[in-house]
Amino acid sequence: MSRYFTRDLRPYVPGEQPEDLSRFVKLNTNENPYPPSEKALAYAREHCRALNLYSDLSARELRAALAAEVGLEPENVLLSNGSDELLYFAFLAFCSAQRGAVFPDISYGFYPVFARLCGIPYREVPLRSDLSIAPEDYFDRHELVVLANPNAPTGLLLGPEDIRSILERNRDSVVLIDEAYIDFGGLSCAGLVREYDNLLVARTFSKSRSMAGARLGYAYGSAALIGDLETVRYSVNPYNVNSYTLALGLGAVLDGDYTRARCRDIQETRGYTIQMLERRGFAVLPSAANFIFARHPDIPGAALYAALKARGVLVRHFDKPRITDYNRITIGTRAQMDALLAAVDEIVRTER
Amino acid sequence: MSRYFTRDLRPYVPGEQPEDLSRFVKLNTNENPYPPSEKALAYAREHCRALNLYSDLSARELRAALAAEVGLEPENVLLSNGSDELLYFAFLAFCSAQRGAVFPDISYGFYPVFARLCGIPYREVPLRSDLSIAPEDYFDRHELVVLANPNAPTGLLLGPEDIRSILERNRDSVVLIDEAYIDFGGLSCAGLVREYDNLLVARTFSKSRSMAGARLGYAYGSAALIGDLETVRYSVNPYNVNSYTLALGLGAVLDGDYTRARCRDIQETRGYTIQMLERRGFAVLPSAANFIFARHPDIPGAALYAALKARGVLVRHFDKPRITDYNRITIGTRAQMDALLAAVDEIVRTER
Repeated sequence: MSRYFTRDLRPYVPGEQPEDLSRFVKLNTNENPYPPSEKALAYAREHCRALNLYSDLSARELRAALAAEVGLEPENVLLSNGSDELLYFAFLAFCSAQRGAVFPDISYGFYPVFARLCGIPYREVPLRSDLSIAPEDYFDRHELVVLANPNAPTGLLLGPEDIRSILERNRDSVVLIDEAYIDFGGLSCAGLVREYDNLLVARTFSKSRSMAGARLGYAYGSAALIGDLETVRYSVNPYNVNSYTLALGLGAVLDGDYTRARCRDIQETRGYTIQMLERRGFAVLPSAANFIFARHPDIPGAALYAALKARGVLVRHFDKPRITDYNRITIGTRAQMDALLAAVDEIVRTER
Repeated sequence: MSRYFTRDLRPYVPGEQPEDLSRFVKLNTNENPYPPSEKALAYAREHCRALNLYSDLSARELRAALAAEVGLEPENVLLSNGSDELLYFAFLAFCSAQRGAVFPDISYGFYPVFARLCGIPYREVPLRSDLSIAPEDYFDRHELVVLANPNAPTGLLLGPEDIRSILERNRDSVVLIDEAYIDFGGLSCAGLVREYDNLLVARTFSKSRSMAGARLGYAYGSAALIGDLETVRYSVNPYNVNSYTLALGLGAVLDGDYTRARCRDIQETRGYTIQMLERRGFAVLPSAANFIFARHPDIPGAALYAALKARGVLVRHFDKPRITDYNRITIGTRAQMDALLAAVDEIVRTER
């Protein structure tokens, strides 16, 4: 830290990103194991704007395509440089020293980072003992409510009626539903934007659309909420999404069949992996995401993480009360999961 | 604005970005008229990391290549999603309610936007009557000093000794030199990072490297200053640069000959354009950038802007005291400048 630094920040700690990817079966940052579709890549090659020109500020075609997926209008869509950026914009736009934020104690680790960066008060509400969210904990909060659905790292899902009740009981503040993982088994609440002007839905191309490296996020909300986020965007970084990603993103939306097929593949592999892990004595939370949250009765979470890493399999362990026994395991290809299972078998044998 | 919005912002107003680019000779946002080099594009095609994986957080190879260009180390380089993002990071990192910022009254319009967004006090120091920067106005400020060099929209350059004197007289605060346009005739001060731990230099791939649409900026500074900016980056958006742009950026650095050749082309066209405009009675400031700042003795700036736009030529007019007579004109290809000159001739004839 230099003597010029004015902030007291506790930055986000991303999952390990080894420089030599070939050394690991990488199941630690919830990436999609499949590449973007050939059609999307071809579309990007053909339609990417000349790179010496600035990217399209309005990106109307992509916003229209995303709006159409949930029956909304382009004015209901904001694009961002990954969904982290739009989550940050939302904290900036809808919080202040007087209006804080509330989210579960176990959820996406970036929420408290944003709150601290924005200098706003925040409260972390404990999950139930089964690690599920109690909707009533988020009633009548008078502050920004932030919920990941399905939640991370648990993978547990809230139903549409729970979301509706939370919206209903927070008419005076924004409810931000982070649907990064919704395409792997959940039902988006984006359609509720037509009924609730306090609903903001965060989405990403990083997971179901296989574009983590391209950096594209988007939000659904009322035209007024999206307008507020655009005001923030034009105060931070108007040209926030690059031209190649805008073209590839539209290509990916146009080839929705591919995304749906790969999501089905991942759900199938998830079912297989859960079954295989349960056979080996693991307890696995029911997951609606492209990852599972699992613990072994005899092997502490940190030990399993380390033993897997020593065998070339990267998963994510959170050294945090209540979940220290667990590991979060991304669902990759069948071959990747078999490599995980083989490593697990070896570890279990050694432990005995 | 929604009733949930907590901020009082005055967002940046970018130059017009018409949806149908084919209708205009676009000389209004200082884009490079030449595409990225074929070699850089080929390098990107070959080396772009699989897009389903997150982008490389450390991007060590690109940082090393940029460091080598000015005799520094990778630890002296930060990468960002365009240079706007890193300018914002600098305001966040080095300002506070107690430590404001100072910059010229006529400069890049984003500086006051960042100051307002960060809630910090700021002062705009008037340029001299000839629109040049008086270095001594920035001595002993005890706050973040921000200077574009060459300045925008004037194109005027400060010499290395002026920069050094400003650094010398601000040892207790950061001096941010925004070198977005330095490759078109200036001399970078990045080497001074070895001597001054308070120097931060902002650079971009948008101008000289023809990559405005790819979004890549970078900063040079002491390892401690860069570390502070990394702390901010990891609190805002760690995966801020996408994989395609990281690969294309490295390809562009490796093909420095192409960049230098295109910069020479633009400087040559700039000389030609200035000569032709002066022949037509314009006063043009001496420019070290890829744009010129020009006024006609008889045609008000706003009228010229509108008349050019009506003829399909977009330039940028700032409706601001002291510079309202001027227009900022990007240097494009020779053919684009001839189109500008033809439109000017038509307008001058009409005005008589």
